[in-house]
Amino acid sequence: MSKEKSFHMTPEEFRRYGRAVVDWIADYYERIESFPVLSRVKPGEIRAALPAEPPLQGEAFETILGDIDRVILPGITHWQSPNFFAFFPANASGPAILGELLSAGLGVQGMLWATSPACTELETHVLDWLVDMLGLPPKFKSSGTGGGVIQDSASSASLCALLAARERATHFQSNRQGCDGRLVAYASTQTHSSIEKAVKIAGLGSQNLRLLPVDDHFALRPDALARQIRQDREAGLIPCFVCATIGTTSSNAIDPLPEIGPICQEEGVWLHVDAAMAGTAALCPEYRHLHAGMEWADSYCFNPHKWMFTNFDCDCFYVADRAALIQTLSVLPEYLRNQATESGAVIDYRDWHIPLGRRFRALKLWFVIRYYGVEGLRHHIRRHIELAQEFARWVAASDRFVLVVPPPLNLVCFRHVRGDEFNERLLERLNASGRLYLTHTRLNDHYTLRLCVGQTHTEAHHVQQAWQQIQKTAAELEQEL
Amino acid sequence: MSKEKSFHMTPEEFRRYGRAVVDWIADYYERIESFPVLSRVKPGEIRAALPAEPPLQGEAFETILGDIDRVILPGITHWQSPNFFAFFPANASGPAILGELLSAGLGVQGMLWATSPACTELETHVLDWLVDMLGLPPKFKSSGTGGGVIQDSASSASLCALLAARERATHFQSNRQGCDGRLVAYASTQTHSSIEKAVKIAGLGSQNLRLLPVDDHFALRPDALARQIRQDREAGLIPCFVCATIGTTSSNAIDPLPEIGPICQEEGVWLHVDAAMAGTAALCPEYRHLHAGMEWADSYCFNPHKWMFTNFDCDCFYVADRAALIQTLSVLPEYLRNQATESGAVIDYRDWHIPLGRRFRALKLWFVIRYYGVEGLRHHIRRHIELAQEFARWVAASDRFVLVVPPPLNLVCFRHVRGDEFNERLLERLNASGRLYLTHTRLNDHYTLRLCVGQTHTEAHHVQQAWQQIQKTAAELEQEL
Repeated sequence: MSKEKSFHMTPEEFRRYGRAVVDWIADYYERIESFPVLSRVKPGEIRAALPAEPPLQGEAFETILGDIDRVILPGITHWQSPNFFAFFPANASGPAILGELLSAGLGVQGMLWATSPACTELETHVLDWLVDMLGLPPKFKSSGTGGGVIQDSASSASLCALLAARERATHFQSNRQGCDGRLVAYASTQTHSSIEKAVKIAGLGSQNLRLLPVDDHFALRPDALARQIRQDREAGLIPCFVCATIGTTSSNAIDPLPEIGPICQEEGVWLHVDAAMAGTAALCPEYRHLHAGMEWADSYCFNPHKWMFTNFDCDCFYVADRAALIQTLSVLPEYLRNQATESGAVIDYRDWHIPLGRRFRALKLWFVIRYYGVEGLRHHIRRHIELAQEFARWVAASDRFVLVVPPPLNLVCFRHVRGDEFNERLLERLNASGRLYLTHTRLNDHYTLRLCVGQTHTEAHHVQQAWQQIQKTAAELEQEL
Repeated sequence: MSKEKSFHMTPEEFRRYGRAVVDWIADYYERIESFPVLSRVKPGEIRAALPAEPPLQGEAFETILGDIDRVILPGITHWQSPNFFAFFPANASGPAILGELLSAGLGVQGMLWATSPACTELETHVLDWLVDMLGLPPKFKSSGTGGGVIQDSASSASLCALLAARERATHFQSNRQGCDGRLVAYASTQTHSSIEKAVKIAGLGSQNLRLLPVDDHFALRPDALARQIRQDREAGLIPCFVCATIGTTSSNAIDPLPEIGPICQEEGVWLHVDAAMAGTAALCPEYRHLHAGMEWADSYCFNPHKWMFTNFDCDCFYVADRAALIQTLSVLPEYLRNQATESGAVIDYRDWHIPLGRRFRALKLWFVIRYYGVEGLRHHIRRHIELAQEFARWVAASDRFVLVVPPPLNLVCFRHVRGDEFNERLLERLNASGRLYLTHTRLNDHYTLRLCVGQTHTEAHHVQQAWQQIQKTAAELEQEL
């Protein structure tokens, strides 16, 4: 360390301030239920509390940390609150947070095997573990023709799957010549919006995405898929990609892989399975049936950053044929050449996703799996599903609320009997209470409330309180309207 | 907290283990120079130290942390070592690491303004600060028609720029109809490989990427660009995107924006400027000339995670016309609708990049800018450039080494006089010594060594030692060969 003012934080300062941040986080979790779950600030309010100009001189760390309470906390929507039931969860946990900290401290780049072999090998290893943990087909393991990689999100994973599908269908000519408007992708009306985004990004065009009808449980209808593929082929188009979902965002619908799979196989169409939230349930043998038919899939993803206590970002993406993915995304400029790569004996993950750089995300996943153990993870998944099922029974037994569809897992879709406007008002008032946070969707063209039990610290009493709050607020609104 | 075994880490345990990890990191930085910079493990060695099966029961945190030393450290290539001179740096710092920790602790999703207003507003605010800090045109500020967003990497930022360019050139029809093989993109032979990757991903096809010749300083030749655009138009093609680089990866070449800009303007072609590493130099008024001509740019990116002490991932991406970017990437399913979005008064960053989910990356950037202050950041940038320039003078004065091109900033390209094979052997031996890590490139078809000074803790004596080691090793090799 140079004698002159270095501006850097010394290791001793890092110890001191590091402890302060660790304590801040522990305190935060101890008082998290005292905050309104959904932030109440108005647009522009946070910025108004920030100075217009950056500081010319450095500030004390204590001042900066103090501003977290003063400036930042009012603008936080508390995803880690046990009263967070919105969207899908993005749950975190102690071991995950500490894994992320360690990853930031090591600060390695895992773009090539050589740039930190542990970053690549731990990732490959833990993703192989997860194949067994979730009962996925062995073809997704690195010991076979496939393998797994951590992506930032299911959106990016689905895009990579679509790109590999596009290249396989065009014998890797789209990469060279560009798209020609003839490639077609398939999903259901319930499929996540990231597929539409991917289809646009990849140059297929949204008019070449077929959003197919669903059955009464909002699952993709295989007959509609088969018919549409046939029609498209007859029209001279090239069907290349099907996205099936295990646990759709709106209602957790399970697309029937055992029927979709053979159609894709026969038609030579890439089958991608998006199990972003629900995949985690397959940790428990009794929910492994969710993955029935997975032997037909060319690629698969699920997000430990949703329901497996591993903080964002951590999407696990698997392919059955890694060569197709790598050939799709590989570039090798001189400045990245190295002996290990040229030996062919290693994985270079930069060819498995969009960005080149990548951080050591496997650490937090490894920490979570080891700290909880498979049994610990199963315990919480079972508990969450049980709590959601109980909530669904309360809804079904109520004369004011309707269960829109039987909940397959931990997401309950329900509505008040008094129609869309009432439900919309109800949601607003519930979220304004600060006591819980729910979001909505539309199912069968009705405004529908969603309650997803998946936050790390959600316990029975949180779900009970939520149901009481919902009933009470609905009763108040019924009086008023 | 429930009475039954919860498997979770309690806040008290989090305090204890959190301190242990903080101390581990502080210790790591104190002993980082004792490790070989480039990991010495063989392919498969890390995996061989890991159990084949995941643990069924949870393990003690102490055991897990102990395995970092035992299993992980041998497989780390030490990007945070002051003797790391390879690639471009991916430097971290105390305040950045603690910002990342806090972000993981808060665990919020910033996909929509409403899902954590502070996550969005702090990001917009700090990215506006950086426009002033780097002397960028005000059009990139959120107060005008543009704005900035944090992306994971320059690869992803360039892809987004290309997509917006593609849509602007086709009046947003490519998104709908798909690409048709007529869109053309332009870069130089020295442009980063991510542009080729982006051109493939976006469905343009690599044969529609023109890699244009460069001048003696490896900078894009504007005359070649103008000529090629004209030819392509005459051939019925649609020029849509030019990527100019401020600081190419191989040699830090600066493409001449003041000449490229007017060509793009006249031709109505989107100009993206990639300043991934070198952009940071513009923090210092004396290097702000690097950004001359930026008023012509439609988009710009630089990576605080390279040279501005903010750990990966943190790429700052700016557009002059945010409407074009948003219209390109926007999707709005029912389950993401909310009042704030529909008011039009807020930014929803999910429409500014590929993934939907996003973490609170602005925190670490804010911590770094505040902790160092603008003057603290400038101090280190100046120091790094000074050290690289000094190294270049040593090379130039040596009779055994040749300076391949005058270094514009902190990257020195040089080679030993004895030819490619000798230089390749020299690099291997230097890296095998463990004392430093350099990488190579090819310039004018010669194998060329690169030494980049940008690691947070690199001081004068590290650069001096590197030069001594290079001279000594070269002398040994000269004896042997």
